[in-house]
Amino acid sequence: MPDTLGPPVPSPDAEARRRPLPPGAFRVQRPIRFSHTDPAGIVYFPVYFDMFNGVVEDWFTHGLGINYADLILERRIGLPIVHAECDFLIPSRMGETLTLGVRVERIGRSSISIGITGEIEGSVRLAGRLTVVATALDDFASIPIPSDLRSTLEAYRAACGA
Amino acid sequence: MPDTLGPPVPSPDAEARRRPLPPGAFRVQRPIRFSHTDPAGIVYFPVYFDMFNGVVEDWFTHGLGINYADLILERRIGLPIVHAECDFLIPSRMGETLTLGVRVERIGRSSISIGITGEIEGSVRLAGRLTVVATALDDFASIPIPSDLRSTLEAYRAACGA
Amino acid sequence: MPDTLGPPVPSPDAEARRRPLPPGAFRVQRPIRFSHTDPAGIVYFPVYFDMFNGVVEDWFTHGLGINYADLILERRIGLPIVHAECDFLIPSRMGETLTLGVRVERIGRSSISIGITGEIEGSVRLAGRLTVVATALDDFASIPIPSDLRSTLEAYRAACGA
Amino acid sequence: MPDTLGPPVPSPDAEARRRPLPPGAFRVQRPIRFSHTDPAGIVYFPVYFDMFNGVVEDWFTHGLGINYADLILERRIGLPIVHAECDFLIPSRMGETLTLGVRVERIGRSSISIGITGEIEGSVRLAGRLTVVATALDDFASIPIPSDLRSTLEAYRAACGA
Repeated sequence: MPDTLGPPVPSPDAEARRRPLPPGAFRVQRPIRFSHTDPAGIVYFPVYFDMFNGVVEDWFTHGLGINYADLILERRIGLPIVHAECDFLIPSRMGETLTLGVRVERIGRSSISIGITGEIEGSVRLAGRLTVVATALDDFASIPIPSDLRSTLEAYRAACGA
Repeated sequence: MPDTLGPPVPSPDAEARRRPLPPGAFRVQRPIRFSHTDPAGIVYFPVYFDMFNGVVEDWFTHGLGINYADLILERRIGLPIVHAECDFLIPSRMGETLTLGVRVERIGRSSISIGITGEIEGSVRLAGRLTVVATALDDFASIPIPSDLRSTLEAYRAACGA
Repeated sequence: MPDTLGPPVPSPDAEARRRPLPPGAFRVQRPIRFSHTDPAGIVYFPVYFDMFNGVVEDWFTHGLGINYADLILERRIGLPIVHAECDFLIPSRMGETLTLGVRVERIGRSSISIGITGEIEGSVRLAGRLTVVATALDDFASIPIPSDLRSTLEAYRAACGA
Repeated sequence: MPDTLGPPVPSPDAEARRRPLPPGAFRVQRPIRFSHTDPAGIVYFPVYFDMFNGVVEDWFTHGLGINYADLILERRIGLPIVHAECDFLIPSRMGETLTLGVRVERIGRSSISIGITGEIEGSVRLAGRLTVVATALDDFASIPIPSDLRSTLEAYRAACGA
């Protein structure tokens, strides 16, 4: 029996995200732990979104040189997520080590779309995206992306060949 | 500065999901707890995906009359998530009570796309989707949606006016 | 081979906590979900501590009549945990429904020790304790337990026959 | 107003656990992330118990040379937790890095009590304990600690000067 509406048409970004990471992409490694996995023995999907948030933190602090905790606690700039999505292509299991890497997909006035791809031994396991909006934490109003962050993001994107 | 590519074009399903729930939709209530919220005082987004999984469980067991635990533990049929997404429109805070409701968006041969909308006092706070694939847990192969589940899903969709 | 030191001697409180809940105890029900369980099919233990925090919230708001969110957000009084412990006596599995109930074990100047017992069909599955300290959130200094809370706790303890 | 019963008397093990880690202890570092912290800006306590489970995994695999995933998935030996406790002495905040280290407190026939101490810059922030029981995953019966694990644990304890 066919889908009633036909499958959704993936965006060009979604296609790019399912390709292996470019050489210049910031990467972190995450062991798949007992606690990440469910009774079927595979990672419970919200865990990946939690990992994504940690990957963005590490990318800011260690990849872009903009300390994430300082951004929030001292500069009082938040990056709440307004959209999150992920395609889960191949399940992962306890004892494996996932490499997660970051692409900049879009830089708007206030918003940033961040593609995150998870690989094991060069094979793409999952491909997601977070869209965040620069926000003043004191009144929760969106603000333009701070200029130091914007220029760093643009340089990162260029270095990844996007 | 404009977005470099322009915003993605939302699918018709995404538009529907951002509208208030139809009267016939299965709904559950979830208190927003201290533990759900982050240092900015709003719900940490992976918590919503975890709630979605619980909503699907409750919908199967209490809405569709197909016990979710039995499906997995006795019939050995899993419903791993192959795609998840959510638009987070308005943040929610500790002490609020979220109403989460379910729409059936798509019924394929093996896959089911489930729209989940979160409202507080009739205002849509978030609008998400999970796509699951019926899977034999013994070998992790996809299987056709079992016929009792398919007919129940179709009846539910009709009752919601989809 | 014997334990090198012998087992720890449980406190009288620990013994009491392992007995079924008294009739007057505040109770909530929690379904055991897919997401709570691990690859061995039983609840992953930190989930119980997360449940305990939610039980305390519900007990304050619905049992003691002191709204937990208001306490934190409006009165700016926090109850950080300084000690947590639990004996896990019998594992619980997806599809079961746990009844969690509250005993007041100790009321100090600033600290409150809360016994939490989890039962299924009258059989004790787990028996834990949280010790919290009343704290001014603006400077994180401990404060005397507010008098409305103290008198409510004492009345609750009396009603439970402690 | 005094405590009604007086404070509990900590065990000698609890005292030891609150002292800085011995030089030979296995240690891992964990960044305190945005996702670990609560609306009060400090780590939400169940997160520490989740970290403890990961520390035990890393200690087995990287410290004791007994691969934790293989133990569970191939040897079908589980280590369910029968008791967990922790004293939270000093709160930790986003941007800090916690060092967690392991002591063997007790080796029984089937059970192992593992002390876990968390430090930042030599100051003890938290001191916990997990007691696990070696279990055959096929029938959930407790089994004697496997001899390779027992001898490794005893060597570890000796190396830590316990």
